[in-house]
Amino acid sequence: MDFTSERRLDDGLLEREFTLGEIPGTLWTPESAAAAPLILMAHNNGLPKGEPRLVARARHTAAQGYAVASIDAAGCGDRPRSAADQQARADLRRAMQAGEPVDGIFESFIGPLVEKAVPEWRTALDALLALPEIGGPVGYSGWTALGIRLAVAEPRIAAAGFFAGGYVPRAQREEARQVTVPLLFLLQWDDEGNPRQRALELFDAFGTKEKTLHANMGGHVGTPWFELEDGGRFYDRHLK
Amino acid sequence: MDFTSERRLDDGLLEREFTLGEIPGTLWTPESAAAAPLILMAHNNGLPKGEPRLVARARHTAAQGYAVASIDAAGCGDRPRSAADQQARADLRRAMQAGEPVDGIFESFIGPLVEKAVPEWRTALDALLALPEIGGPVGYSGWTALGIRLAVAEPRIAAAGFFAGGYVPRAQREEARQVTVPLLFLLQWDDEGNPRQRALELFDAFGTKEKTLHANMGGHVGTPWFELEDGGRFYDRHLK
Repeated sequence: MDFTSERRLDDGLLEREFTLGEIPGTLWTPESAAAAPLILMAHNNGLPKGEPRLVARARHTAAQGYAVASIDAAGCGDRPRSAADQQARADLRRAMQAGEPVDGIFESFIGPLVEKAVPEWRTALDALLALPEIGGPVGYSGWTALGIRLAVAEPRIAAAGFFAGGYVPRAQREEARQVTVPLLFLLQWDDEGNPRQRALELFDAFGTKEKTLHANMGGHVGTPWFELEDGGRFYDRHLK
Repeated sequence: MDFTSERRLDDGLLEREFTLGEIPGTLWTPESAAAAPLILMAHNNGLPKGEPRLVARARHTAAQGYAVASIDAAGCGDRPRSAADQQARADLRRAMQAGEPVDGIFESFIGPLVEKAVPEWRTALDALLALPEIGGPVGYSGWTALGIRLAVAEPRIAAAGFFAGGYVPRAQREEARQVTVPLLFLLQWDDEGNPRQRALELFDAFGTKEKTLHANMGGHVGTPWFELEDGGRFYDRHLK
């Protein structure tokens, strides 16, 4: 794990860029003598880890006493994309905007993307937990499909917050019942890209008994600010 | 408004019983020099205001700096019931336990109960707001059907938290779209007496744009303790 740059933010947080082989990542750590619990924060696959809303969420979370890390996994964010991936992404966007069925494209494109992302997130997790400023336990926040796969595959994840679970590959819908860690499931009631009924069915399917659904009005990017604080308290209950 | 008894609790709260004509009530107020915002806390119709879970909720809320009041409205709680009401209540319970349709009984029994309760809650609100230790604004917490009617009829109510909205009389389902105050809607996913799909439809129907749904696993009395704190922050955002 090579740190390629660092800067100290106004509130004392340390924000560092790193690379781990081909994987680029960002790590935010609080000013603290003790090793901090870690939260892995993943965007949906189309956006880079430097996207302002993810960065704001990461900084706010780190300021509550967490180490927060994000990576651009293979094919995600700013990582190189094949021509076929570019095409699939464009097809998916066009079909969603046209209100056409997207399951086929989704399955053939996002399914493999999740499969390729998981080992890279686990590699990052190994490297992050080896740092002296990071302790356990580990939480996950963000992209639902990746989070399901990670929560099932990775026993070190102790709590997970998922956002927008309308479209999730079949493999992850099926393994949702194997997720047994405490869960906060955040839903935008009129999310243009995530059918509400499917998201509710996914929430119902999770195997964990300690799951909470929070739903608010509005579209995909309309989540109210107080949900960030609610999420913080969810992690506090399970990771601190 | 006649105070008939008072006691000072360990945490400095003052708990007073009062009567207002035929209406018995309880008022919890915090130790505070300034006038406190008021929360009207109503149980579902079958339970008295002295029921331990409501009392615990009221005390916790008052300790956060609120005046909290509850009454037993006509036909509710410990108030006298007609033989017909007794019978309707027994029929309703039996039908629910047997998994039979309850809409008919519900409509003919709970509908009038809500209609009779509303003027008594408004009378109590007038008397409570005349006390120097209580200021505005006013929040509502609890029984969904009563809360809908009050939120529509009573402009002094500025925020409302509703619990378990599976069975609600038709009149209140229809006026849900007229509710425009900020709303926190609390749902138990497997509430044995409140069909989930109906509760989700009611949440969808409310007219307010600032509404949040919280759902947790388990039956009617299984709401996790942290929802009380989440509810407190909801009222803090809108009443303080």
